[in-house]
Amino acid sequence: MRQAHGRIVIETRGQRLYDITDEARGWLAAQRPADGLLTLFCRHTSASLVIQENADPSVLRDLNAAFARLAPEAARYEHDTEGPDDMPAHVRAALTQTSLSIPVAAGSMLLGTWQGVYLFEHRRAPHRREIALHYIGG
Amino acid sequence: MRQAHGRIVIETRGQRLYDITDEARGWLAAQRPADGLLTLFCRHTSASLVIQENADPSVLRDLNAAFARLAPEAARYEHDTEGPDDMPAHVRAALTQTSLSIPVAAGSMLLGTWQGVYLFEHRRAPHRREIALHYIGG
Amino acid sequence: MRQAHGRIVIETRGQRLYDITDEARGWLAAQRPADGLLTLFCRHTSASLVIQENADPSVLRDLNAAFARLAPEAARYEHDTEGPDDMPAHVRAALTQTSLSIPVAAGSMLLGTWQGVYLFEHRRAPHRREIALHYIGG
Repeated sequence: MRQAHGRIVIETRGQRLYDITDEARGWLAAQRPADGLLTLFCRHTSASLVIQENADPSVLRDLNAAFARLAPEAARYEHDTEGPDDMPAHVRAALTQTSLSIPVAAGSMLLGTWQGVYLFEHRRAPHRREIALHYIGG
Repeated sequence: MRQAHGRIVIETRGQRLYDITDEARGWLAAQRPADGLLTLFCRHTSASLVIQENADPSVLRDLNAAFARLAPEAARYEHDTEGPDDMPAHVRAALTQTSLSIPVAAGSMLLGTWQGVYLFEHRRAPHRREIALHYIGG
Repeated sequence: MRQAHGRIVIETRGQRLYDITDEARGWLAAQRPADGLLTLFCRHTSASLVIQENADPSVLRDLNAAFARLAPEAARYEHDTEGPDDMPAHVRAALTQTSLSIPVAAGSMLLGTWQGVYLFEHRRAPHRREIALHYIGG
């Protein structure tokens, strides 16, 4: 049994979902894993993680729009000093995931056929986002 | 320290929560665990996982209705080729969980008294859903 | 490789976010960890976990207000015998997290600079809440 730490860095350019499946898969392959558990952890509170459909890009656009409706900029927020997109970003992050744990079997994440791993950026301005990776297993 | 992989398969019949606590407990017991960590991972993007109250079935019906309001079919979606319930299903999945990790002590999941583990089906048509299980521990 | 179990108990006094970062850090430090994975698990269905900004308390107040709008008491619920705040509490818990897994490196949780770990209480009346802790690693 062993462990490994790693990270994915994404330079985001606006509010949308960024596919990080290949980055996660590439890092995992480099650890030469057998069976284990991969945890991804987003080190931010205005960006988050989701697993979503990797087939039709319109799903990702609709998701972005749906979360814009769920946590609208037009709502009245006390915390508004960092711009109108800041507080909605925190709400959207709270509604999605900060950590994801994915079983690994025979060296591969047990993702379903249509599943991709995404960083969900909730801020408009460019940001440098870090996702910590942790593997434990054989 | 050791690991085990398993899976739960559920044939769903419409949008509601399906209790999978007994299936998870049964699989875990068969591994004869001591202390460890159980991870459940839903291999789909239009069904998801939640831990919710196992006592009053009306809670589950209200949850279903609340998520129908949060991600309504009546909203306008770009991705509409797979039926009016498809895109809302993705949003409801993103709002809940794809993975859950539950500590195991003395062979049992550390669920609270009123907690059950549920697969939340967001599509109307029957689906075959797979939940990957992973145990690591003693 | 080794494991440890622990728990955090919080006596809540109304609907808001309670910072449990110091409690988690203190318990973790007492295990003298090197590298590993810390899992927090909320043993309730009307309280939950979130990782959010630890800098400006107005963010926490806005989050509380945003979730009150997302799962309003004014909605009609079938399950209403435990008070008007009960069913919205279940919805708010389902919208946030029951479990969180945080990588640990060189003895510390890999939280981002602005991240704190919070128990999100969704009931008005005082409650005693338990969060199970599990560490696995070196």
